[in-house]
Amino acid sequence: MDIATLRAQNPDHWRLATAIRVLAMDAVAAANSGHSGMPMGMADVATVLFQNHLKFDASAPDWADRDRFILSAGHGSMLIYALLHLTGYADMTLEQIKNFRQWGAITAGHPEYGHVKGVETTTGPLGQGIANSVGFAMAEEHLRARWGAKIQSHYTYVIAGDGCLMEGVSQEAIGIAGRQKLSRLIVLWDDNGITIDGKVSLSDVTDQKARFAASGWDVFECDGHDPADIDRAITAAKASPHPAMVACKTHIAIGSSAQDTSKGHGALTDAKLIADTRAAYGWEHGAFVIPAEIKAAWEAIGAKGRAARTEWEAQIAALAPAKRAEFERIFARELPARLAAAIRKVKKTAVDEPKKMASRSASEVALKAINPIVTDTFGGSADLTGSNNTKTADLGAFDIDSRKGRYMYWGIREHGMSSAMNGMALHGGVRPYSGTFMAFTDYARPAMRLSALMGIPVTYVMTHDSIGLGEDGPTHQPVEHLAISRATPNTLVFRPADLVETAEAWEVALQQKTTPSVISLSRQNLSPARTTHTAKNLVAQGGYVLADSEGKRQAILIATGSEVEIALKARELLQAEGIGTRVVSLPCMELFAQADEAYRKRVLPAGPVRIGVEAGVRAGGWDRWLLGERARKSDFVGMTGFGASAPAERLYQEFGITAEAIVAKVKALL
Amino acid sequence: MDIATLRAQNPDHWRLATAIRVLAMDAVAAANSGHSGMPMGMADVATVLFQNHLKFDASAPDWADRDRFILSAGHGSMLIYALLHLTGYADMTLEQIKNFRQWGAITAGHPEYGHVKGVETTTGPLGQGIANSVGFAMAEEHLRARWGAKIQSHYTYVIAGDGCLMEGVSQEAIGIAGRQKLSRLIVLWDDNGITIDGKVSLSDVTDQKARFAASGWDVFECDGHDPADIDRAITAAKASPHPAMVACKTHIAIGSSAQDTSKGHGALTDAKLIADTRAAYGWEHGAFVIPAEIKAAWEAIGAKGRAARTEWEAQIAALAPAKRAEFERIFARELPARLAAAIRKVKKTAVDEPKKMASRSASEVALKAINPIVTDTFGGSADLTGSNNTKTADLGAFDIDSRKGRYMYWGIREHGMSSAMNGMALHGGVRPYSGTFMAFTDYARPAMRLSALMGIPVTYVMTHDSIGLGEDGPTHQPVEHLAISRATPNTLVFRPADLVETAEAWEVALQQKTTPSVISLSRQNLSPARTTHTAKNLVAQGGYVLADSEGKRQAILIATGSEVEIALKARELLQAEGIGTRVVSLPCMELFAQADEAYRKRVLPAGPVRIGVEAGVRAGGWDRWLLGERARKSDFVGMTGFGASAPAERLYQEFGITAEAIVAKVKALL
Repeated sequence: MDIATLRAQNPDHWRLATAIRVLAMDAVAAANSGHSGMPMGMADVATVLFQNHLKFDASAPDWADRDRFILSAGHGSMLIYALLHLTGYADMTLEQIKNFRQWGAITAGHPEYGHVKGVETTTGPLGQGIANSVGFAMAEEHLRARWGAKIQSHYTYVIAGDGCLMEGVSQEAIGIAGRQKLSRLIVLWDDNGITIDGKVSLSDVTDQKARFAASGWDVFECDGHDPADIDRAITAAKASPHPAMVACKTHIAIGSSAQDTSKGHGALTDAKLIADTRAAYGWEHGAFVIPAEIKAAWEAIGAKGRAARTEWEAQIAALAPAKRAEFERIFARELPARLAAAIRKVKKTAVDEPKKMASRSASEVALKAINPIVTDTFGGSADLTGSNNTKTADLGAFDIDSRKGRYMYWGIREHGMSSAMNGMALHGGVRPYSGTFMAFTDYARPAMRLSALMGIPVTYVMTHDSIGLGEDGPTHQPVEHLAISRATPNTLVFRPADLVETAEAWEVALQQKTTPSVISLSRQNLSPARTTHTAKNLVAQGGYVLADSEGKRQAILIATGSEVEIALKARELLQAEGIGTRVVSLPCMELFAQADEAYRKRVLPAGPVRIGVEAGVRAGGWDRWLLGERARKSDFVGMTGFGASAPAERLYQEFGITAEAIVAKVKALL
Repeated sequence: MDIATLRAQNPDHWRLATAIRVLAMDAVAAANSGHSGMPMGMADVATVLFQNHLKFDASAPDWADRDRFILSAGHGSMLIYALLHLTGYADMTLEQIKNFRQWGAITAGHPEYGHVKGVETTTGPLGQGIANSVGFAMAEEHLRARWGAKIQSHYTYVIAGDGCLMEGVSQEAIGIAGRQKLSRLIVLWDDNGITIDGKVSLSDVTDQKARFAASGWDVFECDGHDPADIDRAITAAKASPHPAMVACKTHIAIGSSAQDTSKGHGALTDAKLIADTRAAYGWEHGAFVIPAEIKAAWEAIGAKGRAARTEWEAQIAALAPAKRAEFERIFARELPARLAAAIRKVKKTAVDEPKKMASRSASEVALKAINPIVTDTFGGSADLTGSNNTKTADLGAFDIDSRKGRYMYWGIREHGMSSAMNGMALHGGVRPYSGTFMAFTDYARPAMRLSALMGIPVTYVMTHDSIGLGEDGPTHQPVEHLAISRATPNTLVFRPADLVETAEAWEVALQQKTTPSVISLSRQNLSPARTTHTAKNLVAQGGYVLADSEGKRQAILIATGSEVEIALKARELLQAEGIGTRVVSLPCMELFAQADEAYRKRVLPAGPVRIGVEAGVRAGGWDRWLLGERARKSDFVGMTGFGASAPAERLYQEFGITAEAIVAKVKALL
């Protein structure tokens, strides 16, 4: 259909959709940057979705049972900003639209979660939205099973572009959704055939419909500019018993001289092009001008969910008080009060009945105490359940026939797992954690960064955290991965030394509402470091004096995780020679950095020589403690390159991470 | 077929394949760690491949025209070690097999490139081998077009498991190979239905054959234990005009009591299980004992390519001397002698005709000088060609009908691109470089780590390297990515300040034979920093005095890349106030750290206060220069968290990365 026909056949629809198109054009032109063509091309699909299908109430963006709308093709941010403005989200004023991509505006270049009500997740890094959406849909299935369909019953809609589908993470997402039959997940593929470098065919010939079908999706098609056809396809997708992909054939930058070209993907800023496009659209209003009747029609769309929302609120109000409080607790990310006592009990037992154990096993012990109390946790592993120790017996598997299950077998998909965890945390009502080997932080990185950027409390359980994993060799031995996570803003990296510290680390991680955590855990057995019970959570301080010097304090050994026991052994050797040695355990550098100066000074006084001990690279944040913070002389015992394949004890010897090496370095400095 | 039938029907084949199986069982049992089941299950496929198809000569592992065999399922390392031992690779002695996974042995837990002749790439992180293989196959197509089929004409065979196919990077690889019709790429899928956590169906229902077909592959099937059927399928795959996937239906840990179970995936160490399995195999020899006639039969397989190899050597010898020297040059990773003069010319022109330009544009200027001379470069971009400035006019596109093209449109596939570049570099004869936005280092990380671990000179062109990219906002603005690459062992990270430094950085990157490089480049225009021509490559020193103090030296400003011009401006302001200020440009921290102590001391003397300036996090290696190296007082001007969406100039102001902020910090310290 040509534009004239589209206009003539569906004038009401045309005006609604074109309001999106011109706002997108105007905002991009004003910013002189951004992406015009995608919002122009997908305006019809979005209009039909919002008008006929999406359950939402613009006046209550946080309604917990709203349908979720995810713009995976985040560069088309003006599409969602226009929709939010038009439907009447209070914070999305016309002024914000006019200040698209400017300092202080909520209308960032890519949609940013937390800046804008109605933006469910931060997108822009391609493929993330579609992978997040799997987590959204899982959370809905899980909560519906637990709370009933009157409390949780909604769809997750995703707009994804060719870029999202070329990114590998999309395959992981598709695989998970297909396996789990997430029938309320609907992906609207903006099939416009264009990428930045040219036509999609320049780099891809994949039959996307066949690809989705191969993983158990139902596939539909529509003319992405024909509202009746779009409506038919979405209706069918909603009814399908599998996750559904709707291939929406669209024209990028429709109606402009840049239609169906790479140029149309980017910022259209030429005044004549914009004027000509307005004329083709039959839009006679000035920049940023939306006629009142069109705005009113859109606001009616924004209000059509109001009755359903009110009814839902009545359902919540009608819940038994304890149940209602629990519902509010899980969405507020609050912890049950009795968790603290359970953590203390784990710590007390650890001290009373000391055992050698790997910190990954310690994590399982902690989770056995946590999961029965914090019933909103949802665990998983990327096909390493027995190695990551993430599954406790009370967590049944989440599956098609057991949606109440709280444990997910993600498959060999670290990236999809992490991105789906982001989606679960964003959905709310569940508290996701999952594991893989720490070296595979690499695979999960794009999603881990987004946990931090969005400020959502996802917990990454990263086991096998050093050469201590032994024979699997350097591909599996992290050396720079503590550094990577520590360099990432708004991320807590815990490296506990024993069961007590592991329980404390879990407690602090669970207390976070706006910060993700990485818990770095050993494969190998470790001796207990904490031998006296303290009710207080010492890990919450980031670092603390674990064993103080006897006699004149000449050295401070600062260690983390599996190297704490080596530092304690070195201290014994040094004390035996009359060298007063303190051991500082530093399980969380970020928290220690946040501690007040006076406390840090007490832990790390100026005089003694300092040795940092960690089986990773020194670049992992060590220079601050070894060169700064009143340091005088210092050295580091750790890794300077990649590891090797051999039994762990041999590797520690060969790479010189031993008590004897620490002693030698202390003596060299004294 | 049951084992008895298999034994009876093909006794010769059975004995060959079972030699692999028992070596794998024996080595894993001796190491008490590793993976027995995969080598046992895939022994039949590997035997047929090596016996009937693979072009190789065990006595000449570096033969440049050999077929490449890639074990993407790297945990099954004993499969390849057994094959190399049996066929007679000189370094793979029985002693090495007996020392599987031990310190000092070449038989690491996962196959490590560079440790073992015959191991074409390091695998273990799943999906990497299959993605590498795309680069191998591309290199072969390219070199065959340029050198003729008598010089380069071979296949790339990959054994991939379910884990490889679940990892998202496999989809990127499949997409690239399908689009490029890499008909000499053959993937043998070990379809055993088992992962670590259980059956594949626990986490995946993907119809892999349909999935490959959807991206333009030809798909074949075989009974992975029936040699005739395997042979038929591989023969068909070789003849197919598209990349081919052969689904090999196998039994993991075949013949053992752990067959077809997750237990069979891991280390089988139980003596009775092993004895029973030997009995089922009809194998009456002790641990590590291979009867002479079986070894001889295998060695004959290892020698069957000898004639072809000798003939190939004659072809090389018959080349015109210049052509032969060029062939040897590209495989030796040598640079043409005249590159040095071309780089000097770029530098001279930059100084003589100074222009403001983005360093990404400077990179294009440098590449315009490099590509016509270093004719083995092979460029590309993950759908950001115009933004990464990686394509010079002389590089035609590599495509089905233009295999001589030296530029690849990778599509939106940073991970697949990087992993394929690893494959190209490993294949030899090409020198890959490609670009994306620096923030998407995250997507490429697993492959970038492997470039470093393997020690191969891949060049990553990472543009838009800070908040200086402006309006796209924090999802696209790297702040921790310099830190990530700098924390990675054996990686050179260049952040040049202008055209001169960019040309120098490229020269140093191209000189590397065993180290990958990351070149971090600005989107925004930068003023020339180097205004006097020096023939010497100053970037090769890592850091150097760019502008010295006048009068008493009170401050040293250390800056990189786009912040060098800010530091120079601060210096002017400080000098105007009589504060003698030196500016040190630090384009490569790794090289500066390698420079001798005396040189570093001249550049960074002890007295003056120091300010580090970089639009990234301080954790990016700064503490060494600001707290160590004789530092007295220091501070840092950079980022402490994520960026924001706004024009670049505004962001620099708002985040306080300005000359005025530097001046204020210097004064506060003085």
